[in-house]
Amino acid sequence: MKILVINCGSSSLKYQLIDMENESVLAKGLCERIGIEGSKLTHKPTGKENYAIETPMGDHKVAVQLVLDALMDKEHGVIESTEEITAIGHRVLHAGTVYSDATLINEDVKKVIRDCFDLGPLHNPANLIGIEACEAAMPGKPNVAVFDTAFGMKIPEKAAMYAIPYEYYEKYSIRRYGFHGTSHMFVSGETLKKIGKDAAKVIVCHLGNGASISASIGGKCVDTSMGLTPLEGLIMGTRSGDLDPAVLQFICNHENIDVNEMLNILNKKSGVLGMSGVSSDFRDVREAADAGNERAIMALDAYRYRVAKYIGSYTAAMNGVDAITFTAGVGENDTQMREEICEYLGYLGVKIDSEKNAQARGKEEEISTPDSKVKVYVIPTNEELAIARETKALV
Amino acid sequence: MKILVINCGSSSLKYQLIDMENESVLAKGLCERIGIEGSKLTHKPTGKENYAIETPMGDHKVAVQLVLDALMDKEHGVIESTEEITAIGHRVLHAGTVYSDATLINEDVKKVIRDCFDLGPLHNPANLIGIEACEAAMPGKPNVAVFDTAFGMKIPEKAAMYAIPYEYYEKYSIRRYGFHGTSHMFVSGETLKKIGKDAAKVIVCHLGNGASISASIGGKCVDTSMGLTPLEGLIMGTRSGDLDPAVLQFICNHENIDVNEMLNILNKKSGVLGMSGVSSDFRDVREAADAGNERAIMALDAYRYRVAKYIGSYTAAMNGVDAITFTAGVGENDTQMREEICEYLGYLGVKIDSEKNAQARGKEEEISTPDSKVKVYVIPTNEELAIARETKALV
Repeated sequence: MKILVINCGSSSLKYQLIDMENESVLAKGLCERIGIEGSKLTHKPTGKENYAIETPMGDHKVAVQLVLDALMDKEHGVIESTEEITAIGHRVLHAGTVYSDATLINEDVKKVIRDCFDLGPLHNPANLIGIEACEAAMPGKPNVAVFDTAFGMKIPEKAAMYAIPYEYYEKYSIRRYGFHGTSHMFVSGETLKKIGKDAAKVIVCHLGNGASISASIGGKCVDTSMGLTPLEGLIMGTRSGDLDPAVLQFICNHENIDVNEMLNILNKKSGVLGMSGVSSDFRDVREAADAGNERAIMALDAYRYRVAKYIGSYTAAMNGVDAITFTAGVGENDTQMREEICEYLGYLGVKIDSEKNAQARGKEEEISTPDSKVKVYVIPTNEELAIARETKALV
Repeated sequence: MKILVINCGSSSLKYQLIDMENESVLAKGLCERIGIEGSKLTHKPTGKENYAIETPMGDHKVAVQLVLDALMDKEHGVIESTEEITAIGHRVLHAGTVYSDATLINEDVKKVIRDCFDLGPLHNPANLIGIEACEAAMPGKPNVAVFDTAFGMKIPEKAAMYAIPYEYYEKYSIRRYGFHGTSHMFVSGETLKKIGKDAAKVIVCHLGNGASISASIGGKCVDTSMGLTPLEGLIMGTRSGDLDPAVLQFICNHENIDVNEMLNILNKKSGVLGMSGVSSDFRDVREAADAGNERAIMALDAYRYRVAKYIGSYTAAMNGVDAITFTAGVGENDTQMREEICEYLGYLGVKIDSEKNAQARGKEEEISTPDSKVKVYVIPTNEELAIARETKALV
């Protein structure tokens, strides 16, 4: 069984074709600048030569057709016809409170995704376009929506509800949803396999340009740091994460801007970029910090301090923790950051093997010492594989 | 030495006259509805009969004079003349980044308090009026400002700075200040005395209608839950505490209100009141929950869950904790809430003696068992005494 995984952004489309017999990637690639001048497709078939083409892509329909052409290309292709594709799995941001588990897409599912444009203004419209483009290109083929909120939607009411007038939940479904759900589900699942204990308490730190933490017991999420939107929680590349809501009022009034401009600043100009003034890329900020840049040092201090505090917070939420797993760009590769975060956690009996930690870059590794009371792992995330697995389970 | 402690709200004035020889309260009282119809003074002299008078109070100057008259009253008074008052200690909310330690008030201090009206729009103007009223009524007498931010201002940069563009700190001093500082300072200080360990790691849960948590090592605050304003952090009687900043944008846009209206909702209509729809008073909410009201149950669940998460978070911040102390209205009296919060903390070795806990209402008590790895205390807060001590130290 071969499953095509599609992840659409507003002007991009990422794809992977996965052979579910052995969960191997047959090909993967990316369409960029869809609907903008300079559209480009980069295609990477396993065992064959990569290729890139620059050709106009007016919309996602054109992009989907180009992806299918590449997959069936005589020289660079990996299948003969779309007949070989059993189903398409789509990453979809949000379906409010209506859907959260992976779902076979029908007209109602599409309607709900459309109804939730408000809750995911950047992602939901692109996700829907991608679905419709696949429906048009491969009529009758099953499409499955895997929601980024799936994992986080399972959290109990005490973690989900904001302490605001209840009417806003009733009127607008304002609650905490959590994101990076596919990643947290995958990585916490892989962690559980390693521990070999069914009801294990696991904290997953997904530290990338976007960053979030989840707590789960036996694979069921009990809390997660992103909320109504992916802005809440940790300090990120350009996002502020948590802050006093009164900060918005103060800045709006003093800078004479409205709340939409303010949110743009909190989403795009804040985080380690805003604090350091250097970059949203942790490697640049680390370099600046190493060279003595005080604001870069402060940004990294604040970043890891908040991660450590969330780990502490979620340990209380679960009344204990069996394993802590780092994943995503920073989590998989920044060995120093991992070690510095774990320095806060001696009281839990966390002990890191510095040598193992230094070696674990972008690969699976247990980085705690044998006598550490809490297991600490690095596990690369694989959202595409998780989506393919969910899709397979449904078709 | 007798010290008069003054705490002015926008239409109220609370006072205590304290004899510093033995830290005993000679008299205390409250002026209500200053500048509004129906002004009233309630005066409670120790060992004498209380009395209340309803008389017009056009402004805080009139109120201060009435307080002094009551203190010197033939029948209900406790002093013969204001000559006996050595100094006046004022609770002042905010002096930005300029002052944080208790300070003898001069023209510059008053200027800074005025410059910070923006940072404490409800409290700072009233605090300044109270100071000027005392200066007018008792010329030449030393007035001391004890700032509510004093304790929280000591937190390190990594805890103080928001992950927003740094220019907002430079332009407007936007950072985390923390409040309830006098209470946290007093209660953490009393906790240190009990533990008898200099560098003890202490978490103080000030749970009242307003609520905040602090972490301190050897009496020096390292983190605290309120931020730029007293809105951040825990769920409170009517305040939301932490939430995704994007919630403000969503509600503003959908309800067609501006950020100022939104902040009013978050400060006055949220918290356990907004969640439960019942009341901002925990006793009412508890009663409703006991009667099966689901939203009241949810509000209390969410409340104690957030307290427990903050305790976990601050334990990570300090890499351990020696003592947890509950104070203020809910913290001193709600035995069930304390026990439920501590149920999350078994992983830290926290053990509560249920009998001791049930008896500790509004009085000092160690409520942990002898073999608990973390000491847990109830210690009534006494902000007035703390202000008087700070004032004494300066004059």
